[in-house]
Amino acid sequence: MTSVEGESLERQAWIALAHVVEPGDRQVGRLVLSEGPRAVVDRIVDGTTGLRHQGALAARLDSVALFAAEERAASCQARIVTRADREWPSQLDDLGEAAPYALWVAGAANLRLAALRSVAMVGARACTGYGEEVARCWAAELAGEGWAIVSGGAFGIDAAAHRGALAADGMTGCVLAGGVDVPYPRAHDALIARIADDGLVVSESPMGESVRRQRFLTRNRVIAALTRATVVVEAAERSGTMATAQAATAMNRPLFAVPGPVTSPASAGCHRMIRDAQAVLVGSVDEILGMLDLGRPEGGGHGRRSERDALTVVERRVLDALPGRRAVDPQEASRLAGLAAEDTWAALGVLEAAGWVTHEPGGWRLAPGRA
Amino acid sequence: MTSVEGESLERQAWIALAHVVEPGDRQVGRLVLSEGPRAVVDRIVDGTTGLRHQGALAARLDSVALFAAEERAASCQARIVTRADREWPSQLDDLGEAAPYALWVAGAANLRLAALRSVAMVGARACTGYGEEVARCWAAELAGEGWAIVSGGAFGIDAAAHRGALAADGMTGCVLAGGVDVPYPRAHDALIARIADDGLVVSESPMGESVRRQRFLTRNRVIAALTRATVVVEAAERSGTMATAQAATAMNRPLFAVPGPVTSPASAGCHRMIRDAQAVLVGSVDEILGMLDLGRPEGGGHGRRSERDALTVVERRVLDALPGRRAVDPQEASRLAGLAAEDTWAALGVLEAAGWVTHEPGGWRLAPGRA
Repeated sequence: MTSVEGESLERQAWIALAHVVEPGDRQVGRLVLSEGPRAVVDRIVDGTTGLRHQGALAARLDSVALFAAEERAASCQARIVTRADREWPSQLDDLGEAAPYALWVAGAANLRLAALRSVAMVGARACTGYGEEVARCWAAELAGEGWAIVSGGAFGIDAAAHRGALAADGMTGCVLAGGVDVPYPRAHDALIARIADDGLVVSESPMGESVRRQRFLTRNRVIAALTRATVVVEAAERSGTMATAQAATAMNRPLFAVPGPVTSPASAGCHRMIRDAQAVLVGSVDEILGMLDLGRPEGGGHGRRSERDALTVVERRVLDALPGRRAVDPQEASRLAGLAAEDTWAALGVLEAAGWVTHEPGGWRLAPGRA
Repeated sequence: MTSVEGESLERQAWIALAHVVEPGDRQVGRLVLSEGPRAVVDRIVDGTTGLRHQGALAARLDSVALFAAEERAASCQARIVTRADREWPSQLDDLGEAAPYALWVAGAANLRLAALRSVAMVGARACTGYGEEVARCWAAELAGEGWAIVSGGAFGIDAAAHRGALAADGMTGCVLAGGVDVPYPRAHDALIARIADDGLVVSESPMGESVRRQRFLTRNRVIAALTRATVVVEAAERSGTMATAQAATAMNRPLFAVPGPVTSPASAGCHRMIRDAQAVLVGSVDEILGMLDLGRPEGGGHGRRSERDALTVVERRVLDALPGRRAVDPQEASRLAGLAAEDTWAALGVLEAAGWVTHEPGGWRLAPGRA
């Protein structure tokens, strides 16, 4: 078996797991972390996972038309991005045992690059005019600053955030709880189609999967994991939004909450998160940007580590190989990093998108403040 | 010289200092803390304070009609409460070198008792309808729960807080920057007169003193020191309200801030204090009461200590002498505490007002939860 065949088999294993394992299933996730995807698929086939739901997993594996999965996606202008793929947003791996195995993606942009500079903006479906205005304006402002706005396509705050980003000709990503060909809510058919055209529609559910109650909660963890920070615009005291916030907190991602009138129940969840020091109060986009900047290398500390952690081994190798002050051409960068020219070019593209390096007429150099 | 004469001389010394020393003057305050009021008055007379403004202090002492001070207050239905008096709110001593020497008080209620269970409610003069509504409703609710609402009588939030407390037939205290016979702003003549009738009007400035810019700032420290906690309803980013908040923080008094729409500049100061963890966000009166309860003995910790600190030595002695579970009559309490019956009675009254003890047909006992 060649290495290309091996890679292809691994990819197929991730796609198989994405079909048969329920999102967020930590028992299978633990096995995958310790044995790898191909071994786990083999165990499901052989009936040796030792899990109580072994039978259900095997039955699903039997029934899904894996061979047609890629074709089916392509027929809807979608693609499957697995953990084995270059486009995989590696910060999803922070979910550990609960990390997705593959994502279905509709949209021309590179998911990995978009996610590197993205903010989740979520909130109540039953929002107020105030919340809707803040979501729309702030999403437009953040998108104008080059940040992708990620949300869930729901009524209320979600839709306002997507629309704000679209209105600013910015990038927006919609993470669905069902298949990317099953827009939900149906009333947002046109909005979700527009996001697929101008941004990205993403799901860990295979094509055709309908939404289920549980999948809204597991979907929320993907929104939190995919992004650098989560902004909660309005949330009632008990709500699904609080689950997204919980997921962001569990991953040590910055969580921002927008205050509102104390007379508005739609702000009660935000106020609780602020009072309990779970979320940081934000009063403007500038404040959000200021705090995201703390995550840049010059800020130091925790943020620095987690941003570097979002890079692949190859990207970090290229980054570390760049000289402190002068610009280098790709050939020299490739030589310094000891990597193939093609891999070095790709890595430089990612590093540029994430603000680590800049591209000038003289070549590539470390971005100011990162030298 | 009898002890009664000594007490009277000390009282006169405090009144003299209140006339000649500018509020918040820490240089004189330091001398007073180390040598006592009578020695400092003697030094001013003798020209031996060693302070650069010795001349100014002596000149003022010469010019004020001290002998007529009490009469002049009485002619306006006011009284002078000095640090030597039983009615003195001892938590003002937390101001240390900046503590007032005496207060001019108009109103029938006992200032010391009212202050033991009081909350400052302050905020922007240029407030919004939202802020005004929150101040009015919360002040009424807190007053209905037996808390005195202390504020500065200004336009906007201050006036709304006073009015809310008055509307609930509750206790409210207005701390003025000029004399208690110089209502300011003049447009609040009637409001301040009503507060003197139904509540308390207080100032550390002698009768007839007009307001000066500096005295608004020094007045704010009295509002913060007099109360158990400060609630800021609306405040612009740079404002006098922020000074009151600063004073509360400097004394480790709980500081609460009310959030509002991020689109409202009147809430920007509140949001900043919350974000900087200077103030705790509060969304309702219940939350305020819940956090003030942390200061009760069963809550433990810091709050417990500071509430006991507000008691005099005599009150603490009576409190500590009460048996754990049974009620005692005043004679027995007096015997157990080893104090005169008269002093024991007075202390029991204060302890009851502050919620430490309850008065039942069988006598006095520790309040539930305090045994």
